[in-house]
Amino acid sequence: MDIAKTNRLSLVEQIVSQIESLIESGAWEVGSRIPPELELMQQLDVSRNTLREAIRALVHAGLLQTKQGSGTYVCSSSTLGAALQKRLQKANLIEILEVRHALEREAARLAAIRRNKEDLDDIQTHLEACHEAAEAKDSKTYVEADIQLHKAIVNASHNRMLVDLYEQMSAPLQQSVHNLSEITCHSDFHHHVHRKLVEAIIGQDTDLAAEAVNEYIEQFIETLT
Amino acid sequence: MDIAKTNRLSLVEQIVSQIESLIESGAWEVGSRIPPELELMQQLDVSRNTLREAIRALVHAGLLQTKQGSGTYVCSSSTLGAALQKRLQKANLIEILEVRHALEREAARLAAIRRNKEDLDDIQTHLEACHEAAEAKDSKTYVEADIQLHKAIVNASHNRMLVDLYEQMSAPLQQSVHNLSEITCHSDFHHHVHRKLVEAIIGQDTDLAAEAVNEYIEQFIETLT
Repeated sequence: MDIAKTNRLSLVEQIVSQIESLIESGAWEVGSRIPPELELMQQLDVSRNTLREAIRALVHAGLLQTKQGSGTYVCSSSTLGAALQKRLQKANLIEILEVRHALEREAARLAAIRRNKEDLDDIQTHLEACHEAAEAKDSKTYVEADIQLHKAIVNASHNRMLVDLYEQMSAPLQQSVHNLSEITCHSDFHHHVHRKLVEAIIGQDTDLAAEAVNEYIEQFIETLT
Repeated sequence: MDIAKTNRLSLVEQIVSQIESLIESGAWEVGSRIPPELELMQQLDVSRNTLREAIRALVHAGLLQTKQGSGTYVCSSSTLGAALQKRLQKANLIEILEVRHALEREAARLAAIRRNKEDLDDIQTHLEACHEAAEAKDSKTYVEADIQLHKAIVNASHNRMLVDLYEQMSAPLQQSVHNLSEITCHSDFHHHVHRKLVEAIIGQDTDLAAEAVNEYIEQFIETLT
């Protein structure tokens, strides 16, 4: 490969990285259409060919998707996310569930150690929202609050790798979580376990936090199988 | 985008998928050089331009690497692996360690439930090898046996997603595992915990298995920090 080609390849790499950053930072949101070619050529100060090759590379990586006649859209928030989504298509629900629960258990333990004031406010707001939705027998609101509560707990682990992986593993499970949460919404069990988990995190009791996670996981798998 | 272009794009996608399969199946090994362009064009029945674009997409995805003047090499065994390696570069050692341990704990629990005769033979062979290396004070052999033992336990979980993620999370930790294992090789503690873990898996005691993992993780983190 001659030097001109090598330089061109590394220039494409640079543009790929720049666009990845735009996507990962959220400047280009998932689901949105990317700016027109001419605008991007100017913004990134790059030729049409280089831009097109970078876009194609990102389509192959699963970050962008080209829809015939309507443009190019952002379809995943990170390269890791896109690769995980691809891999998850080959996995079954139980496999995904087990990995997600492994991450959730560790997150609860770490949250119990590392949670700060802001984390606790966040967690308690969502716990309260769960409780209110359950009281009102509003399944739809309950499901959303439940997802937000678990996300807040994972965030309190202050491990970004764990947060990233958890979010990726959660997406394909969203539908079954929805179905299940609608069932469990009216049960006292769920509310009891949520409260136990949150209290363990407040009291910085790692073992109790892990135990609470185990309880709702067992219940979850039982309902599913 | 006109139809000819769309067809071309999907043809490139097909070639990308075919090459991914060659890599993921191990037909093209990590570290090996891929066949010459002409040979691949014939083998995959594809034009030079399409092949080149597919190769470039795989270079961007981190599966292949082009070395100036010497050809193109396989540098990762899966798209997920390549994406995780990229993401791991932005993570710190403790973050990676915590995620790996989350996977390890879940693997031990599942291994205790699902291990079959073949798994147990495998696990016991590597446990024995650890013991022998420790007796002989052969740190190098001990480190290898230790890695194989933990791999055998994760395999016994029979969750392929867990196996994949564990292997990816282990690679960047290999060096610190090496350093640490050399230190712990001569300690009775490690041998005791290994035996406890294996006995829990044999006896199908999930709680004891998780407890044993917790013990060596705590020791691991203590030595590291």
